Amino acid sequence: MSNGFHDKILRVNLSDRQISVEQPGEHFFRTYFGGWGLIAHYLLKELEPGTDPLGPDNLLIFAPGVVTGVATGGSGRHAVGAKSPLTGGFGEGDAGGFWGTELNRAGWDAIIVSGAAEKPVYLWIENEQVEIRDAAHLWGRQTAEVEEALKKELGDERIRVSQCGLAGENQVRFAAIMNDVSRAAGRTGLGAVMGAKKLKAIAVRGTGKTEIADWDKVGEVAGWMRDNFKDGWTGELHEHGTDGGLEFLSESGGLPTRNFQEGSFEEAEKITGRTMTETILVDRGTCFACPVTCKRAVEVTDRHEVDPIYGGPEYETAGALGSCCGIGDLEAVAYGNQLCNAYGLDTISTGVAIAWAMECFERGLLTEEDTGGLELRFGDAQTMITLIEHIAQRQGFGDLLAEGSLRAAKKVGRGTDKYAMHVKGQEIPMHEPRIKFALDLGYATSPTGADHMHNIHDTAYEAEGGAIQDMRSLGFLDPLPADDLGPEKVRLAKYHIDWKVLYNCMGLCMFMPYDKGQIRDLVQGVTGWNSSVFELMKVGERALAMARAFNYREGFTAEDDVPPWRFSTPFKSGPAEGVQVPADDIDRALDLYYAMCGWDKETGAPTAGRLYELGVGWVAELLYGG
Amino acid sequence: MSNGFHDKILRVNLSDRQISVEQPGEHFFRTYFGGWGLIAHYLLKELEPGTDPLGPDNLLIFAPGVVTGVATGGSGRHAVGAKSPLTGGFGEGDAGGFWGTELNRAGWDAIIVSGAAEKPVYLWIENEQVEIRDAAHLWGRQTAEVEEALKKELGDERIRVSQCGLAGENQVRFAAIMNDVSRAAGRTGLGAVMGAKKLKAIAVRGTGKTEIADWDKVGEVAGWMRDNFKDGWTGELHEHGTDGGLEFLSESGGLPTRNFQEGSFEEAEKITGRTMTETILVDRGTCFACPVTCKRAVEVTDRHEVDPIYGGPEYETAGALGSCCGIGDLEAVAYGNQLCNAYGLDTISTGVAIAWAMECFERGLLTEEDTGGLELRFGDAQTMITLIEHIAQRQGFGDLLAEGSLRAAKKVGRGTDKYAMHVKGQEIPMHEPRIKFALDLGYATSPTGADHMHNIHDTAYEAEGGAIQDMRSLGFLDPLPADDLGPEKVRLAKYHIDWKVLYNCMGLCMFMPYDKGQIRDLVQGVTGWNSSVFELMKVGERALAMARAFNYREGFTAEDDVPPWRFSTPFKSGPAEGVQVPADDIDRALDLYYAMCGWDKETGAPTAGRLYELGVGWVAELLYGG
Repeated sequence: MSNGFHDKILRVNLSDRQISVEQPGEHFFRTYFGGWGLIAHYLLKELEPGTDPLGPDNLLIFAPGVVTGVATGGSGRHAVGAKSPLTGGFGEGDAGGFWGTELNRAGWDAIIVSGAAEKPVYLWIENEQVEIRDAAHLWGRQTAEVEEALKKELGDERIRVSQCGLAGENQVRFAAIMNDVSRAAGRTGLGAVMGAKKLKAIAVRGTGKTEIADWDKVGEVAGWMRDNFKDGWTGELHEHGTDGGLEFLSESGGLPTRNFQEGSFEEAEKITGRTMTETILVDRGTCFACPVTCKRAVEVTDRHEVDPIYGGPEYETAGALGSCCGIGDLEAVAYGNQLCNAYGLDTISTGVAIAWAMECFERGLLTEEDTGGLELRFGDAQTMITLIEHIAQRQGFGDLLAEGSLRAAKKVGRGTDKYAMHVKGQEIPMHEPRIKFALDLGYATSPTGADHMHNIHDTAYEAEGGAIQDMRSLGFLDPLPADDLGPEKVRLAKYHIDWKVLYNCMGLCMFMPYDKGQIRDLVQGVTGWNSSVFELMKVGERALAMARAFNYREGFTAEDDVPPWRFSTPFKSGPAEGVQVPADDIDRALDLYYAMCGWDKETGAPTAGRLYELGVGWVAELLYGG
Repeated sequence: MSNGFHDKILRVNLSDRQISVEQPGEHFFRTYFGGWGLIAHYLLKELEPGTDPLGPDNLLIFAPGVVTGVATGGSGRHAVGAKSPLTGGFGEGDAGGFWGTELNRAGWDAIIVSGAAEKPVYLWIENEQVEIRDAAHLWGRQTAEVEEALKKELGDERIRVSQCGLAGENQVRFAAIMNDVSRAAGRTGLGAVMGAKKLKAIAVRGTGKTEIADWDKVGEVAGWMRDNFKDGWTGELHEHGTDGGLEFLSESGGLPTRNFQEGSFEEAEKITGRTMTETILVDRGTCFACPVTCKRAVEVTDRHEVDPIYGGPEYETAGALGSCCGIGDLEAVAYGNQLCNAYGLDTISTGVAIAWAMECFERGLLTEEDTGGLELRFGDAQTMITLIEHIAQRQGFGDLLAEGSLRAAKKVGRGTDKYAMHVKGQEIPMHEPRIKFALDLGYATSPTGADHMHNIHDTAYEAEGGAIQDMRSLGFLDPLPADDLGPEKVRLAKYHIDWKVLYNCMGLCMFMPYDKGQIRDLVQGVTGWNSSVFELMKVGERALAMARAFNYREGFTAEDDVPPWRFSTPFKSGPAEGVQVPADDIDRALDLYYAMCGWDKETGAPTAGRLYELGVGWVAELLYGG
């Protein structure tokens, strides 16, 4: 077995309380790496098509990657996957922090949870020792309380905890899985899967180490990062967190505002990262081994009580609970963030679902009769906070929102689905395609539904240097403006998306400014493999193709790859007034992207030929027969 | 402009004697590199479909590559291309030696010859000075005489000469272009194109240098090669030349014998490289900067006069003029080799065309009436020698053979075409698919017709280490036996073929044992580009797709990708008795290879989507409209 992996996957069946170890071998790890690749592999192999995401037959997979736990910036991430209760397709969310590293140090490459417990349980992993324990006393409690209780109960302050919050217990369809209290594997409703399995938490303590084949090679990259993180984008991340760019986005006309009706928010300054730094910030947090320290810890003591243990709002949160709801109140946003982290809610879907309701209410499509007397108005911070509570507790109108905005809209009817800002049922994150057209393509085609993690944020490709210089190493030679959607931009998007899926499979943070050669060196250094950038590109492309294959088997077709209509209507005001993603361009771009990916025009699934070319003929045989 | 290139392409129109310089810029060179890529670019852009290969409208393109002239092993090669008079499709042959390096040092990245002279001319390039000069006194003369005459006439012993021989003048359809007297850009009949243009020779003298961006990086690879070339395959090449493996191949049952009827030759020992070393070898020759020195110089003074200036037989020659004709007479083979080099004939097509005639004669399908009284029998060395003379001079039965075996067979009729061992009209080289199945796929699909240069010789992939270890860097993880043609072998073949086309575009010898990381370092070191192995793979894939696109436009379809029938019949005797390439397997492999390459099942042409993905949307627009 190579370095970087233990060749040990932990399998836990909660129905019959069986615990076992699977050793798939080096070939497996070199093919799938971890993250999306590993998750898609098991979902395809072991899930019957049509499995109820909230039933015991769904799998819940915790999957770090090649670099998780390696002492270099950005290596503190792990992915979680399952069939999504929000989209009905490939579900995945990924988080930073320390939990993934702890799992690696405990000697495990992944955890696959099957079945469901009858009563609440938690999993206690202490190196090779694995135990299923009663969690009745933890059920219903907030995340910080649960982590504290577990540390006390297990007598070790250094354990790391991943858990579903109240929202997951209540099977809110966009419930997150939280780790280290403030970090969320947020998207696609994995907390609900965990809750449905009555798995309250996974506590991990690992005292082993992450084996590295060639520390010199890894150390060179790690050292470069240490020496250079204060430059450019990561420097800004360090200074003001991910929320540092919010005000700039508003000025560019690309800040999702009032449910994406506008791209500029008059109160952006109030909720931007710089303001946070100057007001409520008490500490900068980090993930394992990362010098960037882009995480925030904020404290509020007057109107709302915000405890720094719950971190502070990321950009996605400031956008979703802030501008997207028309709310320019940082303390309220910070409190909303705390609630989401305490209950285990995805802040993006939460904010966008609330924004949907606000727009519908303002348009008269929802009334107080629907909302149980709540008046839903953009800018009303208290209502936003109340709705978060109600969603997590599935109370009143919150019970409807807990289904996600698309399902909610379909239940309500009256054309409210028009204002559900989603793809495949997942709410759109805080990135506006009208200022970067290729993003629209990524939203439409991501197998997880609207997703910003494995997408192209193409502003950087306008200019010389930086991203475009790095893309040259793939033979992509020309800068292209953000509002281009021609063939070369589609090619750029394809390469970029494949590469970002690789990040996920590696357990690497997408913010890291490593160039492709450095990422190759990281993989080579950790594993001892002679991997080329070609191999790495194929790892990403393979994982994406497999996730698409999973969706195809669940009944998705090309018709589910719908670019949100709103982005093909012009902004009525603001710095990007009049700008829209041209509908013809996006249609042509979709066709071309399909062709480049080797996806069938009708089914949207990867062709047999492409699957064989990606070395996963077994997926072709699964989909199309032998 | 980056290093490694001058951004200067020499254009010479022989019809109006116009000489001009084209500067396509860095983007062009980074996209096409040289060789196949550059040739396909110009043939697609500038040739009308249906152009007569032997008419003035054909282009003749001399194209070194990124590393041509860089002081490291294997960098002495250049490609020549045109529409082929042999296949009617994409024509290319490439050669080692010193001519490509000299051209580079003269400050030129390529030469594109258009039009045709009224009277024989030659081109004299002395750095930036270019002159079209009268060649009446050189016409009809043998290659060594021409080179000597030019050195004298130009007053410089250090000029390098590329030329068409008598065979090219006579438009033998498999005439080679010779450089440095003994090196042949042998395949697809480019000598005939040169002859048809009445361009006798290109003499070059360059006193500039090849600019290198990062000599440390290049030097590390060059030094590794110097230190290690005596190991493994290159060590054998040094010791006994390319012909060193002939005897082993015969013992494996894979030596083309008596027109591919058998795979083992009872007299193999007599014509193998070791015997050559022990008998007629007088010197080892080399190409520019290469420590391997795999070239031979032989001398024979009794029966035949063989001058070392004409080198010595390569494996291809020993096979084609030797075993394939049933001839176990090394001196005769060496003399045949000298004749081919003196007249400018491709030894492969020459030998296989003669072998075709011998088989037909032995089967009674050709008679002395056809041959002008010659009795054609396998093993008859004198007849082989006579036929070479007659082919070059287009005399008697030789005039028929000069058309290539397929055209000859079609003229003769009587089912003789069955025994023409060819793909797309080009004779098959000395590699037997029955001992390495994937080769059959490569023969069938190569745009140049049966070709060993851009093909997979898959024996090495059976074992750990070497080639398979290197292919791991592309994510190809499993060794596979040579008689496998399953999906993973097809994937291996695709990756391998794309990579070998890259070698051509780079001007790098396919024998070099550099791994993919070293080749990336060479490109990066020479050019200063940040190229990844992904970019390099795409350069190969792009050039191949463009060559296929050219063939499509010339009327080729998938039906022209025909695996030779003989390889799907079992050997009747010998070490590989009973072995055949299963017809079903090759059919399935072809389908899958097409799918992996993104080639249309019917037309065999790359799809628009693939062409856009390769960054050459203009080819898609050329083929399929805007």
